[in-house]
Amino acid sequence: MSSTKDIDALIELMAKLPGLGPRSARRAVLHLIRKRSLLLTPLADVMQTVAATARECLNCGNVGTLDICDICTSEKRANGELCVVEDVADLWAMERSGVFKGRYHVLGGTLSALDAVGPEELRIPRLLDRIPSENVTEVILALNATIDGQTTAHYIADQLEGEVRLTSLAQGVPIGGELDYLDDGTITAAMRARKTL
Amino acid sequence: MSSTKDIDALIELMAKLPGLGPRSARRAVLHLIRKRSLLLTPLADVMQTVAATARECLNCGNVGTLDICDICTSEKRANGELCVVEDVADLWAMERSGVFKGRYHVLGGTLSALDAVGPEELRIPRLLDRIPSENVTEVILALNATIDGQTTAHYIADQLEGEVRLTSLAQGVPIGGELDYLDDGTITAAMRARKTL
Repeated sequence: MSSTKDIDALIELMAKLPGLGPRSARRAVLHLIRKRSLLLTPLADVMQTVAATARECLNCGNVGTLDICDICTSEKRANGELCVVEDVADLWAMERSGVFKGRYHVLGGTLSALDAVGPEELRIPRLLDRIPSENVTEVILALNATIDGQTTAHYIADQLEGEVRLTSLAQGVPIGGELDYLDDGTITAAMRARKTL
Repeated sequence: MSSTKDIDALIELMAKLPGLGPRSARRAVLHLIRKRSLLLTPLADVMQTVAATARECLNCGNVGTLDICDICTSEKRANGELCVVEDVADLWAMERSGVFKGRYHVLGGTLSALDAVGPEELRIPRLLDRIPSENVTEVILALNATIDGQTTAHYIADQLEGEVRLTSLAQGVPIGGELDYLDDGTITAAMRARKTL
């Protein structure tokens, strides 16, 4: 049907988003067409803007609309603490918690021999440069608790040994977590790192 | 963070799509920004086009870019059969199956006393007009097998009684369906409508 060419193209592109398949993309597109003025037009406009302006911070890899992101330019955040994360989504999660007041460094993935991802692909050289230039005193390795994440953490720790204080996020029982639903590894880690009350 | 205003707005709008919540909207937006030239720009462009051109067919309620959709203008599909569906998604599902060669009529919902949806809200008057003007000989009520769907089917059947042949989709065991996973109602319907081999 030639008259639905654009709608079909929209469905096809929407189906490429993570979390949407062909069926949910069709549902989403019908929803968008029904709410044309409330949702489809604003969404198209803001997508145009983001496509034109979004860029990675040249310093830390965070996503924003500036060459150097707000966090990297803020003097308040230059407290000597640098939190290393795998992905921008992890940075956003840390920012939502509001617990961390320092700066970030987004690796953009993890080292992986299988996928041929080495330190050069991961913004690790830039990390090593930042330690002296930003007077970093502590590097917090907030990488995912996966094998690749931990391998990458070990690699970075090796590179930085002796230069700065190196820490990692504590492992243990998540808040609201029920022991019955936790895996053995988490329980083992929580038991080993148990605290005196 | 003022420099991420547009990105935040994009996440907020994406989270309004059916099937996406705040977390999956964030994931989708990061994916879009990463694949800016491959996905975000084309998606924004096609959304602009669809927002400008998408409309409901004035005759049947199908979604397309023409005032009267391809199916309604195709002489091949004027075979006297009219399939009544609740929603454009149902029309698309029927078209994908390729089994139906007639025309459609999209009600745009079901009658509902609770939500104050009467026949006037549902494109039912237009349906009654189409029977004589398009020489319809058979109306197939392909409404969902829900209470509201069946109420609507009964209402339409009442209106059209004696004027045309009225049929509905067969109820029974879906292809590939396992009896153990089917509800009692489906098994009852399939048993009552059993066929001689």
